[in-house]
Amino acid sequence: MKVALAPARVPGFRFAGVSAGLKTAVGAKDLGLIVADHPCPAAAVHSANKVKAAPVYVTMDRLRAGKLQAVVANSGCANSFTGKAGLKLAKDSCTLTAKELGIAPALVTPSSTGIIGHLYDLEKFAAGVRAAVASLSEEGMADYARAIMTTDTRPKMASTTVKLGGKTATVAGVAKGVGMISPHMATMLAYIVTDASATVPQLKAALKAALPHSFNAITVDGDMSTNDTVILMASGAVGNAALKGRDLDAFNGAIAGVSAALARELVRDGEGATKLVTVNVVGARSAADAERCARQISNSPLVKTAFFGCDPNVGRVLMAAGSSGAAVESDKLVLQIGGIKVAARGALLVDALPAAAEKMRAPEFDVRLDLRLGRASATILTCDLSYDYVKINAEYTT
Amino acid sequence: MKVALAPARVPGFRFAGVSAGLKTAVGAKDLGLIVADHPCPAAAVHSANKVKAAPVYVTMDRLRAGKLQAVVANSGCANSFTGKAGLKLAKDSCTLTAKELGIAPALVTPSSTGIIGHLYDLEKFAAGVRAAVASLSEEGMADYARAIMTTDTRPKMASTTVKLGGKTATVAGVAKGVGMISPHMATMLAYIVTDASATVPQLKAALKAALPHSFNAITVDGDMSTNDTVILMASGAVGNAALKGRDLDAFNGAIAGVSAALARELVRDGEGATKLVTVNVVGARSAADAERCARQISNSPLVKTAFFGCDPNVGRVLMAAGSSGAAVESDKLVLQIGGIKVAARGALLVDALPAAAEKMRAPEFDVRLDLRLGRASATILTCDLSYDYVKINAEYTT
Repeated sequence: MKVALAPARVPGFRFAGVSAGLKTAVGAKDLGLIVADHPCPAAAVHSANKVKAAPVYVTMDRLRAGKLQAVVANSGCANSFTGKAGLKLAKDSCTLTAKELGIAPALVTPSSTGIIGHLYDLEKFAAGVRAAVASLSEEGMADYARAIMTTDTRPKMASTTVKLGGKTATVAGVAKGVGMISPHMATMLAYIVTDASATVPQLKAALKAALPHSFNAITVDGDMSTNDTVILMASGAVGNAALKGRDLDAFNGAIAGVSAALARELVRDGEGATKLVTVNVVGARSAADAERCARQISNSPLVKTAFFGCDPNVGRVLMAAGSSGAAVESDKLVLQIGGIKVAARGALLVDALPAAAEKMRAPEFDVRLDLRLGRASATILTCDLSYDYVKINAEYTT
Repeated sequence: MKVALAPARVPGFRFAGVSAGLKTAVGAKDLGLIVADHPCPAAAVHSANKVKAAPVYVTMDRLRAGKLQAVVANSGCANSFTGKAGLKLAKDSCTLTAKELGIAPALVTPSSTGIIGHLYDLEKFAAGVRAAVASLSEEGMADYARAIMTTDTRPKMASTTVKLGGKTATVAGVAKGVGMISPHMATMLAYIVTDASATVPQLKAALKAALPHSFNAITVDGDMSTNDTVILMASGAVGNAALKGRDLDAFNGAIAGVSAALARELVRDGEGATKLVTVNVVGARSAADAERCARQISNSPLVKTAFFGCDPNVGRVLMAAGSSGAAVESDKLVLQIGGIKVAARGALLVDALPAAAEKMRAPEFDVRLDLRLGRASATILTCDLSYDYVKINAEYTT
């Protein structure tokens, strides 16, 4: 399967992205609309954060019926920690969008990203929705991708096609980061649409299967947003037969592929990131151990600053592994950085370090830790911790 | 109890700190010695990291008998992830120190801090030990404190006195940071000595009681060193009667006070730190919830960069609280920054933010989150995440 990092036309869906004046930057797109021709089977997953934003609660409620026709998203304001007023604002936003589209409010779901603790101006929002509805187009995916950006440096899209019983369906997604978390201006939002015909349980299952290897396998700073949301909608416009067997596998594969590509784009554009690092832990005693260990390495500020400095700092990686709670025996493990073996048999391979440092100068490299205690493995994508991460996050003021 | 951030004379102990050439910087003190007049009851706690350094294993072994007479410590090399050669080096270092002092090797314990994966030169070490033995003095505590420094910007000492049945005992400690973790050059080491007479079980109990409110209640970057060690030794020179009742309480209080003061000094001198922040979570449903929540706030890179930027970023603090796993209800909680209420009843108190920002300009301030769900509380000391943290940790190369 080939996934293109580009927008796609997905029959049955139109998109728009306009400037509604919700962001401080004048003229920046900040209101996006996805509209399906008909109500669609849909599924979603959300932040596990106990402090959830108002639009997340509304989306959870909307998805109970498993049907959606429109998503109205804004950047510049997260509508999080805004109490009852925030919930009312999120619902009112859907209602006015529904009225503009001539559909039921229950078929419209909201998404917000930006600053926490503030409400956006509903009049500006309404004017934005009118402009968005007027500009809806099958070619509008890139505009939508721009409208949901916050500290993202570029729009993020991915698309692929999949053969389903002789018909070719498209799966395309849009996402914004730029952390797995990060509550101000950096919530992770992703929207995946397909013209395949699929049931709600199939969409839920496809998303559930895709998550561990995509949006849940990335980290920028180890925090978790209050607004994180992934929504999947299927228009059915391609007219395939009911999904089963090999077709269902292919469909799941396409959802997983687009999800993984979007997740990778999120990390590549992580706040201040200069490097994309794949942390691969193998030979762990259990799957939980493997994940714990990979996450601890991926989130360690000391490891991440070493990545930034192109420093093959074996000690920091092993310190993180050893403190992860996973079973680790320093005499057994083998560590590779950029494919170069830098530690084995309880010792640092000093002569290998210059070659590993050289590999770390590339914009992407792997860290592979073989614990040699079992057969479980886990992979997490992470990025480095640079001066720009501090700059982006310290020099912004509420 | 008054704790002075200064060295003290502690009868029964002599100290030295010399340059043995183990650090790169020419002439920098890097070998320290603590010697008691007689074998002393002693207790210690160590890193929970599964990757432990050789000297930690040796100290664990030495402490089984509960008796120590000398500590020989070096900076510049952690002797961690050095396999059997590292263990032999740590033991040989004790043996040669014991020979120089004319005592049994089992009474000498080693401590190392610095770069991981390398061995130090035993001949240089031996010459350093000879020089240290020659310069042992009751006034040598400050020299010892300098000899164990790595990225510390200043030596860290604390001392107090305690009345035990009419006699005045001294409790004094030395520590180096500059993270609760950080494997290269930043292991946390602390040595506390007293001229009080106490049994090994009493020393163990005093240390155990002091830890949760001192060395285990601080964080710089959430990582955990392979070498962390706290050693407590009691010379008994003051000649107090067996500790019990009020005297035992006073003794425990002095150990706790010195531990807390040293821990505070560690955070204040955290790598790149410009601010000392006390994160206090109250009203939690359970003690575990309170600690989880306080730690998540204290370790969040987004929260720590906001501290650096003097940004009263309520959203980031609540995001961290909500993702900690602790029970959190956003409508109930009350958040104060620098004593200023910035969030309550599910809403941000926008008008209060400038005053909170002003409080954050001070070198020390508090963050107090009242979850209003129960009666449990926890306090963690943390610091901000600055450009200098990235600089210190990215620009160092193995």
